[in-house]
Amino acid sequence: MVISSLKARLFVEQNLVADDLLTLPKDQSHYLRNVLRLHEGDRIGLFNGVDGEWETEITAIRRKEIEVCAKFCIRNQCSSPDIWLVFAPIKRLRIDFIAQKATELGASMLWPVFTERTAVGRINIERLKSNAIEAAEQSDRLTVPEIGKPTEFEELLKKWPEERFLFCCDETGGGKPILQEFQKHTGPSGLLIGPEGGFSNSELDQLDKLSNVCRVSLGGRVLRSDTAAFAALACWQASVGDWNISPVRLKN
Amino acid sequence: MVISSLKARLFVEQNLVADDLLTLPKDQSHYLRNVLRLHEGDRIGLFNGVDGEWETEITAIRRKEIEVCAKFCIRNQCSSPDIWLVFAPIKRLRIDFIAQKATELGASMLWPVFTERTAVGRINIERLKSNAIEAAEQSDRLTVPEIGKPTEFEELLKKWPEERFLFCCDETGGGKPILQEFQKHTGPSGLLIGPEGGFSNSELDQLDKLSNVCRVSLGGRVLRSDTAAFAALACWQASVGDWNISPVRLKN
Repeated sequence: MVISSLKARLFVEQNLVADDLLTLPKDQSHYLRNVLRLHEGDRIGLFNGVDGEWETEITAIRRKEIEVCAKFCIRNQCSSPDIWLVFAPIKRLRIDFIAQKATELGASMLWPVFTERTAVGRINIERLKSNAIEAAEQSDRLTVPEIGKPTEFEELLKKWPEERFLFCCDETGGGKPILQEFQKHTGPSGLLIGPEGGFSNSELDQLDKLSNVCRVSLGGRVLRSDTAAFAALACWQASVGDWNISPVRLKN
Repeated sequence: MVISSLKARLFVEQNLVADDLLTLPKDQSHYLRNVLRLHEGDRIGLFNGVDGEWETEITAIRRKEIEVCAKFCIRNQCSSPDIWLVFAPIKRLRIDFIAQKATELGASMLWPVFTERTAVGRINIERLKSNAIEAAEQSDRLTVPEIGKPTEFEELLKKWPEERFLFCCDETGGGKPILQEFQKHTGPSGLLIGPEGGFSNSELDQLDKLSNVCRVSLGGRVLRSDTAAFAALACWQASVGDWNISPVRLKN
């Protein structure tokens, strides 16, 4: 593990500045005090998605809150790959897995989209967010993926930024070789994953009309939606993402 | 879905020959009769990993067994990628996921290996097998991955076939770019995934001594073991596996 001398690694919303005192929220304080049983003087790592990762020291343990002091920055904030995962919501356990694993695999945004064949009517955004935060803490990320506002398919296409290429993972067999397409269209990107029943013909027609969209193939076997999401993200990171860049650590 | 006129798709151990009558085992008969509520005359697809996929017709529904008649072959058996997934056993739910998703992603063998830091003492092989069969049925595969006999790490290295290249997914940061290595060493391959705590230094040393092994990187974020398995398999299929080959279907 990378956090050798640190007893935990947590995401916070507050600014991280040397010598500042921070009061941690109730749930994190509870976790540090009652689950990990930490004491005053113990060190934990904090990151907020902006100021890098900081080593902090527990300076006070009160009944409902813990106070820490930011000591020094152990990792500078650096840019991370700009890859959105746009996916049709699926059932609870599998959507937890999507949030966790897409975070591990470095998605910068998780954006639920309701397509014609999406069987799930609503999505618990708070749960999606807390799964993403937990996975960011455990996977040593310096950021937490943004959560996009759940959107209807037609609305998504209207809103889609012109400069961002969208790779639609297509199970109908008409998709192009995925790694070649990633190499052709580098820069800010999105991966679109359909529901278990796939996209409707009308949806595929709408996608085909756009110039910054192409259909890519994940092979001839039928993949579950969550498998397709992990697979496409892994291929993107390996081919044009940050898998070949060594992380820089200031101090361990 | 591909099985439009077929009511189910099942893996069987029996031979599949035109006009032969097959008696399905108790659990499959129960599933077809009591869960799917099929009737005589309904058609189901069967595959056995050798004879391709067959359309069969239910000819008799008895109290504890169902009899079907093999009508015609709808898909010829074809060669599938020769990629083994060698992994340290992890906790129950996550190992179910490994079996399911590795099958969807086309692994030809699932082989549990006990490493120094493997926290799980034993593995339920029957459960691994039934998860793999179910995923093969659902993912439209013509084969079910073999299940390797659980093996100690040292034993694995002794047994490892010389002509099969082994890619060790290395979280220590020393791994080479994964897609480049896949392209360099095509042919029969294996992917080695360590336990949550990674490989020990002694294990990495032993791997480094072998000429048909290299360490590959899955990037700077810490991945759970199951995520690493899916990610490596997806990258292998996209780069040197069968994702760019269109499946041939004789009749739908």
